[in-house]
Amino acid sequence: MYFASDNSSPVPPQVMDALARANEGYAKSYGADPIMDGVRARIRELFEAPEAAVHLVATGTAANALALACFCPPWAAVYCHAMSHIEEDECGAPEFYTGGAKLVLLDGADAKIPPEALERKLGHAASVGVHNVQRGMLSITNTTEAGAVYSPAEVTALTEIARRYGLPCHMDGARFANALVSAGCTPAEMTWKAGIDVLSFGGTKNGLMGVEAVVIFDPAKSWEFELRRKRGGHLFSKHRYLSAQMAAYLDGDLWLDLAKRANAAGRVLSEGITALPGARLLHPTQANMVFAAFPRAAHRRARDAGAAYYFWPMDQSLDGPDEEPLTARMVCSWCTTDEDIARFLAVLRG
Amino acid sequence: MYFASDNSSPVPPQVMDALARANEGYAKSYGADPIMDGVRARIRELFEAPEAAVHLVATGTAANALALACFCPPWAAVYCHAMSHIEEDECGAPEFYTGGAKLVLLDGADAKIPPEALERKLGHAASVGVHNVQRGMLSITNTTEAGAVYSPAEVTALTEIARRYGLPCHMDGARFANALVSAGCTPAEMTWKAGIDVLSFGGTKNGLMGVEAVVIFDPAKSWEFELRRKRGGHLFSKHRYLSAQMAAYLDGDLWLDLAKRANAAGRVLSEGITALPGARLLHPTQANMVFAAFPRAAHRRARDAGAAYYFWPMDQSLDGPDEEPLTARMVCSWCTTDEDIARFLAVLRG
Amino acid sequence: MYFASDNSSPVPPQVMDALARANEGYAKSYGADPIMDGVRARIRELFEAPEAAVHLVATGTAANALALACFCPPWAAVYCHAMSHIEEDECGAPEFYTGGAKLVLLDGADAKIPPEALERKLGHAASVGVHNVQRGMLSITNTTEAGAVYSPAEVTALTEIARRYGLPCHMDGARFANALVSAGCTPAEMTWKAGIDVLSFGGTKNGLMGVEAVVIFDPAKSWEFELRRKRGGHLFSKHRYLSAQMAAYLDGDLWLDLAKRANAAGRVLSEGITALPGARLLHPTQANMVFAAFPRAAHRRARDAGAAYYFWPMDQSLDGPDEEPLTARMVCSWCTTDEDIARFLAVLRG
Amino acid sequence: MYFASDNSSPVPPQVMDALARANEGYAKSYGADPIMDGVRARIRELFEAPEAAVHLVATGTAANALALACFCPPWAAVYCHAMSHIEEDECGAPEFYTGGAKLVLLDGADAKIPPEALERKLGHAASVGVHNVQRGMLSITNTTEAGAVYSPAEVTALTEIARRYGLPCHMDGARFANALVSAGCTPAEMTWKAGIDVLSFGGTKNGLMGVEAVVIFDPAKSWEFELRRKRGGHLFSKHRYLSAQMAAYLDGDLWLDLAKRANAAGRVLSEGITALPGARLLHPTQANMVFAAFPRAAHRRARDAGAAYYFWPMDQSLDGPDEEPLTARMVCSWCTTDEDIARFLAVLRG
Repeated sequence: MYFASDNSSPVPPQVMDALARANEGYAKSYGADPIMDGVRARIRELFEAPEAAVHLVATGTAANALALACFCPPWAAVYCHAMSHIEEDECGAPEFYTGGAKLVLLDGADAKIPPEALERKLGHAASVGVHNVQRGMLSITNTTEAGAVYSPAEVTALTEIARRYGLPCHMDGARFANALVSAGCTPAEMTWKAGIDVLSFGGTKNGLMGVEAVVIFDPAKSWEFELRRKRGGHLFSKHRYLSAQMAAYLDGDLWLDLAKRANAAGRVLSEGITALPGARLLHPTQANMVFAAFPRAAHRRARDAGAAYYFWPMDQSLDGPDEEPLTARMVCSWCTTDEDIARFLAVLRG
Repeated sequence: MYFASDNSSPVPPQVMDALARANEGYAKSYGADPIMDGVRARIRELFEAPEAAVHLVATGTAANALALACFCPPWAAVYCHAMSHIEEDECGAPEFYTGGAKLVLLDGADAKIPPEALERKLGHAASVGVHNVQRGMLSITNTTEAGAVYSPAEVTALTEIARRYGLPCHMDGARFANALVSAGCTPAEMTWKAGIDVLSFGGTKNGLMGVEAVVIFDPAKSWEFELRRKRGGHLFSKHRYLSAQMAAYLDGDLWLDLAKRANAAGRVLSEGITALPGARLLHPTQANMVFAAFPRAAHRRARDAGAAYYFWPMDQSLDGPDEEPLTARMVCSWCTTDEDIARFLAVLRG
Repeated sequence: MYFASDNSSPVPPQVMDALARANEGYAKSYGADPIMDGVRARIRELFEAPEAAVHLVATGTAANALALACFCPPWAAVYCHAMSHIEEDECGAPEFYTGGAKLVLLDGADAKIPPEALERKLGHAASVGVHNVQRGMLSITNTTEAGAVYSPAEVTALTEIARRYGLPCHMDGARFANALVSAGCTPAEMTWKAGIDVLSFGGTKNGLMGVEAVVIFDPAKSWEFELRRKRGGHLFSKHRYLSAQMAAYLDGDLWLDLAKRANAAGRVLSEGITALPGARLLHPTQANMVFAAFPRAAHRRARDAGAAYYFWPMDQSLDGPDEEPLTARMVCSWCTTDEDIARFLAVLRG
Repeated sequence: MYFASDNSSPVPPQVMDALARANEGYAKSYGADPIMDGVRARIRELFEAPEAAVHLVATGTAANALALACFCPPWAAVYCHAMSHIEEDECGAPEFYTGGAKLVLLDGADAKIPPEALERKLGHAASVGVHNVQRGMLSITNTTEAGAVYSPAEVTALTEIARRYGLPCHMDGARFANALVSAGCTPAEMTWKAGIDVLSFGGTKNGLMGVEAVVIFDPAKSWEFELRRKRGGHLFSKHRYLSAQMAAYLDGDLWLDLAKRANAAGRVLSEGITALPGARLLHPTQANMVFAAFPRAAHRRARDAGAAYYFWPMDQSLDGPDEEPLTARMVCSWCTTDEDIARFLAVLRG
């Protein structure tokens, strides 16, 4: 009954096997390993982007911060949702890597940016002069931090506005696979065909030990990315162990299988929770995360039974009236089992 | 015949086994995994430093840059050797992480800083005022970039000078194990007992996939380090896979065994090279790296036979007179075999 | 009829005279001039703070950004009003000087931060961990950007909350003199007695060519400020010309006289505007700035007659129905004359 | 007898008059004042560069650091002389403004960079990869920190090497007027015709209160400079007072007259010193600075008589044998009088 985070799950056996296979003899270091050649080719093929720059890092924060830094100068704004990971969960890494850019926050249901909110904010900045932080870039998260999924059309609606102001667009795809499976579209449709310039293509939350690819659709940015990555301490000497993980992730579409499993578990959990007396969803469950309110008594039972998940927001208390609803985030992963969900729902039902 | 870098070697089986063991069920993320508790305890025990802060990162550049940033303000100088890794091989990571500190370079044989050079430089800066970069800290590398080893007494001679000026002292121990084995002293004798405040305790070059510990002997710096690590994108969500590697590294003193093997191979290779006609060492071989000059003809044979190593400096050419000596760096690792060395020497001899 | 900004006014004759007097012979550079000794002593006396660090810079942005940088680490938040100058008008200088701190925005009437908003924001951040930007400091502006004035009691209400969380407090006093004259209190009562740790003590908007003092009540921060100032390029070699201006400003309480004149003009203008048909104030006029809505026809007349002031917000148009109210900011300064105001009001009345 | 620094001199009456004239009525702020239009036009005319971007700041450190930041990315090197002001006297401002670029130091007589030293350094960096700081830009100082002057041909010799590697070139012209007068060439010949991309065109050391122009010959960099200037806190609201000083400086070639006076004084002083028993020049006197060694006894007499100048290097002592030569820097300025020099020389002679 572990729903605290997809970051807490183990790694699928295919990845362990790939690591073992990669661990043979000597290999060129710092990304010159032959496995990386295959990874690069495969990602370009998947994204129908034969020129795209593809680089690996080990954390999502590094992927995002480096991606932003390549597109946003220090004196500009990154427009993002107020609940976005880059704002809430990276301890200022975007500010650090960009050299002090400003995150300008937008609100919207389900952690999605409404096009009209972006339009208004950019229009308001129309009279921007030397006194103001300049318009820099757009960053959206897909799957959003509230478990919702932007469709390619929704992405396009935002990037078209950004484009009118000359802004490049970033997608934080820490849960990109979950979004893709949910939206039922191709990687290209979700990204460059929808106006995305740079993608943090997540692997870690979806089953790897710690590997994310940054995919930049304009290859002219590739060398700058490499320099920023090195300078940030994110270039691995024994790079083959990142490559091997990513290769296994892509091989036979394992990444999509893992995301399908996680999303399916999310759906089952979401339906089960919705059926609880006094429960309601806070956001639609479109991927592997369930946000719901349900009575404190059920939370108490869950904790007593050892279930793991977070209050959302965190500062709520198990002390108080039984019937009062508390709000929680529950995350499924590739290895969440139907048994686990059933057991958890049984505990919640009491 | 692979002597290009200890970064190119595979990982020993004990580490692979530990990863497999760690890959069971769910684990708390971001360093709260129980394996890390054991790692912390073991490192404190090894260093006889029960209060030391211990944190893991995945690259040596991250370890060094974060360590420096915790001790050196943006307006100060890091005194280091002109050949040091932080100066030559990190693409400005120290400048990035410190917010623009200046690396002030010192020369000295075998990539060691002579105490009198440090004394002179610090004394010269005695009249330092607001116009100058302030005296910040000392950073030394052990094993040095020239394959030499500072003894604890030599470390102490430098840190005592630094201490007189109030400067904290960092040791880049990317090859700490090799130095320790070579010097025949304890971890404590090589570090805090010799005046070191913070150590980059390397694992990667000595057999791990990508794990370094930063050991800070004053625990008051621990929280700042954590914030800088997170902000730098170096906090792993699935941290258990770093912990597991480091645990295996320390278990049964595997780390020392690996270093002993690498150093022994270095010694054999060094002796073999020295015996070649027209060859001479550029630096004493005190660990696992051999720096030597030998005739171009031997280099040609080596390349033809597929041996891998670097010219040092790199801009030398195989074209030219046979007898002219070219200078090279050859690095052994935990998995260098006697057969490989013998074959390599045979090729060099022609 | 110039109400665009107090930055557009000339300098009073006392300041010009002081510059001429200072322009005699040689003087020590970089702040070691004897005039600065007098300035320091006088400011300490005025603020009843015999130990305070006092440093001069030439711009308000420099004063604010350096003050913040001395108190807020790169990984922390500066809590400020959404309309604050540091957020809106400094092109990211606070982010630049702090090394990437985050400005966290609070709303409130008249550009004042309501204590409950601060309390809520800090409380929400109570569960702050390594993933979040840390609580850093509070910054308030007095006179606010909406022309309102915090009383010492109001300042205290905010700083007490901040203090409970260990946060230092900054006051952007670009119009400090105007606030002081309006509140009728002493400099000490408005600052350190009300919990302020560092003040940007403005001179430029109130009559100087370009001089602001940064007053730090804890002298332990003085040297860091000096290093940051130098490194920011804000230490003047011919510092005596800054000192001389500030000396004249303080001499015989010229600074208070100038502010009284500006505030009096603001009051007259405010009352005149309020009496216009269809006009209303947007914020109470408590210092030298008037924010008001009045019919477009009056704006048209004003522009035709050559009156200078800004729409507030700027993106409004003179094209449209006569009666529709447009909102504007009008700023008086030490040299605004009653005649100018009378003429302006006559034009507005039509 | 004041030879400590040209920063200690007063301002010529023409500048004071210009300030008084500028102090009339209201003026647009932040550089939109009409006086600035004239300054821009005049500098473009002087430099035969009708498109050049021209911006004013108040300190030489700001001018240099901003100029470098516009041309050198954070991961690159600024090649400069080891004695250069940007290395020795700006407390790391270049590192701060560039976001952590590295100053790579070159040696050479008279604080000039020898072309072969630059060639060697850049060639050595030929094999530069992602691990190294990249080749960024060249910065030279004219008049050099040792009082020597690069001729246009010497400048060209350096910039041609830099150009071959694609590096832009900066000239720190804190004493540009002195160099120009000494070399007897035009501003264009000394700068863009000799390969310079950006010039810190000094006014302060040559008679202004605190104004430097940054002249960028490629106007495409202008907006970035403006944003960096604002963000650095170096955009003056009451900008007219900078403009007025610079206008007076250029008017009727006052700037050249001032430099001629300072250089003439330097020559007289240099010849007088050379004639002293036991004295010798350390560097040729080509502008307004004299570097010389002469016996300690003469130094003692000078100090007793109240003469002001610096030991160079500073850490020398008046205690010791009479005959031992001590080395000193003596700087003349536009207001150094023949009487002062004569008196000083008389004192030195004893």
